[in-house]
Amino acid sequence: MQALVYDGEVLQLREDYPRPVPPPGEALVRVRLAGICNTDLEIVRGYMGFRGVLGHEFVGTVEEAEDRSLIGQRVVGEINAYCGECPTCRAGRPTHCPHRTTLGIWGRDGAFAEYLTLPVRNLHTVPDAISDEEAVFTEPLAAALEILEQVHLRPTDRVVVLGDGKLGLLVAQVLALMGCDLLAVGRHREKLAILARRGIPTLLEAEAEGLAADVVVECTGRPEGFAAARRILRPRGMLVLKSTYHGGVEADLTGLVVDEITLVGSRCGPFPPALRLLQRGLVDVQPLISAVYPLDRGMEAFARAAEPGVLKVLLQVG
Amino acid sequence: MQALVYDGEVLQLREDYPRPVPPPGEALVRVRLAGICNTDLEIVRGYMGFRGVLGHEFVGTVEEAEDRSLIGQRVVGEINAYCGECPTCRAGRPTHCPHRTTLGIWGRDGAFAEYLTLPVRNLHTVPDAISDEEAVFTEPLAAALEILEQVHLRPTDRVVVLGDGKLGLLVAQVLALMGCDLLAVGRHREKLAILARRGIPTLLEAEAEGLAADVVVECTGRPEGFAAARRILRPRGMLVLKSTYHGGVEADLTGLVVDEITLVGSRCGPFPPALRLLQRGLVDVQPLISAVYPLDRGMEAFARAAEPGVLKVLLQVG
Repeated sequence: MQALVYDGEVLQLREDYPRPVPPPGEALVRVRLAGICNTDLEIVRGYMGFRGVLGHEFVGTVEEAEDRSLIGQRVVGEINAYCGECPTCRAGRPTHCPHRTTLGIWGRDGAFAEYLTLPVRNLHTVPDAISDEEAVFTEPLAAALEILEQVHLRPTDRVVVLGDGKLGLLVAQVLALMGCDLLAVGRHREKLAILARRGIPTLLEAEAEGLAADVVVECTGRPEGFAAARRILRPRGMLVLKSTYHGGVEADLTGLVVDEITLVGSRCGPFPPALRLLQRGLVDVQPLISAVYPLDRGMEAFARAAEPGVLKVLLQVG
Repeated sequence: MQALVYDGEVLQLREDYPRPVPPPGEALVRVRLAGICNTDLEIVRGYMGFRGVLGHEFVGTVEEAEDRSLIGQRVVGEINAYCGECPTCRAGRPTHCPHRTTLGIWGRDGAFAEYLTLPVRNLHTVPDAISDEEAVFTEPLAAALEILEQVHLRPTDRVVVLGDGKLGLLVAQVLALMGCDLLAVGRHREKLAILARRGIPTLLEAEAEGLAADVVVECTGRPEGFAAARRILRPRGMLVLKSTYHGGVEADLTGLVVDEITLVGSRCGPFPPALRLLQRGLVDVQPLISAVYPLDRGMEAFARAAEPGVLKVLLQVG
C-alpha cells in the first residue's frame, strides 16, 4: 500500500509498504482523511525517535474486525494503545500505560497510509452529521478538551491562550465556551482573525504588555513559549503546557517557587466530548484547513504544512 | 548595633550598623534568636542580588510600637511586608505583592542583628508554651504548611519528600500528620534517622528505584533535585517545588506534557497553623538544631551552616 514513512533520516512516500494485518482485538481501518500535526513535523526533527508510518489524526472506515457490526462504520480512533492490565491502566490512566504504543508516534504505524490498525476499544463511531473534514479534527479537539479534564476553569477566570497555531485556535474555541474572560494572543493577524470572527478578543504577542492572567495555556509549540507565558501570568496563576518539541529548555524553576505557579502538562484527551462539540456545531474547524492533498502528493503536503502561516494540511487517502 | 551584613561581595560582622527606626505601622523588635536558612547561603552566592542584613527566621521581643500593648511581647514575624492596596493584595495574595519587601531577602534588613523592624500586621505573639528554640522554626514550618494550603493531599496518597535537609525534615514531619503513605528520601542516614524515630519510613536516594509516587515534594535545594523528583513520580502525579537557588535549570518541559505532570511552586506559608503545631507538640524541631552561636561569632556560624551534613545553626542574639 501507499504510505508516508519516516526511516529516522528521511520522510518518503512508499508505494510498496506492507498492508497491516490486525492482531486479535484490533480492527483494520481504511483511512479516508488524515491531518498533519506539529508533532509529525517534530518527529521528522528527531522527536520521540520514531520510525515508521507517520500520522495520528484520521477518520476512516472499518474493513475488518471480529465484531462484524463494526465493519463499514466510519470511525475516529484514540491514539494510545494500552495493555489494560498494568497498575497504571487499572488506576484509570490508560493513556499513560508504560507498555503503550501510540499511533504514528511510538511503536505503531500511523495514519498517513491507505490502512492502519487500532484496538477496537480505541475506535469511536462518527455520527452522520459530522463530515470527514470535521471528524479529522477529533483528536486535536480532544487534546484541547483534556485541559478541562485536568483543570477547573471558572467562568470568571482571566484566561490567555498563547499561540495561534492549529492547536491554539482549537483550544481558544473550546475555552471560549466556558464563558471565561478569554484573550487569544498570537503572532499572525490572519489566524487571530478566525477567532475574532467568533467574538473572541485577540491581541498580537508584541502588544501583550501588562497582562496578569489567572490561567495561561501555552500552545506556541516553541521552547520560547514557556518564558512568554510566564510573563503574562499572575503570581499563584496556572500555566497549562500543551507544546511538545524536540529538546529541553532552560527554565527558571526558582521563579515558579517564588511566584507559586502551578504548571499543568496536558496531552491527549477524551474523544466523546470532542465528537459532541462537533455534532453540536460549537467548534468551527473549516477555517483551520489550509489545504487538502491526495496521499500520493504527501511529500508536497508535508512541505506545505511546515511553511510559516500555514494551518491544517489534510491528506485525502480513500 | 551588631549585624551580619552582606554587601554584594562579602559577608561581614559589623559592630557599627545603625539601629533601625520603625516607620509608621512598624514595630522595633529586639532579636532573641535567629536561624540560618539555605536561602541565606544562596544569597551569599548571588541569589536575589540582596545587600544588607541577612536573616529572616527569628523570635524577638517588641521594644517599640504605636500599640503599646505589644511592647514586651515575644513575637515571630511573617517576612513579606506588603502594601495592602494593590490589586494583588486586595485579591488576597499579599505575599505576592509586587511592591513587597522581604526580611533579609529583598529590600529590607533582616534578623541577624540586634534589632529589626517589621509591620505590626506581620507579627504573631508566641504562646508561652513554645520555647525560643521552637519559635525560631515558625517561618520554615509555615513554609512546609504552605504545601497543604495549595494542594489537597489525600490520606491515601503515596507521597515522597525528597531531600533530608532542614526544610525536608520539617515538610516530612508535617505531611506525616496527614496520614498519607509517606516516604522520606535523602542522602544522609543520620538525618533520615530523625524521621525514622518518629515512625516515618525512609530510604537513601541511591536505593530509591521503581517508586511511582502520587506526590513528590522536592526539598533538595539543588537544581538536580528536579530530575530526581521526576524519576520517582507517576504519570499525572504532582510535583511540589520548594527549592530556591541561584541560577536556572535545563528542564524537560515536553516530558511534563507527555506525562501530564502538575508542578506546584510553593514558598512562604501561614504562621498561625505553624504556631498551633508547635504548641500541640506535633512537630519536633529539637533534633534539627546542629549548633547555637552568639551573634558575635556569626561568621563562624555561617561557615558551619554551609558544611555538609549540618542542619539548623542558630544565632543567639539577645
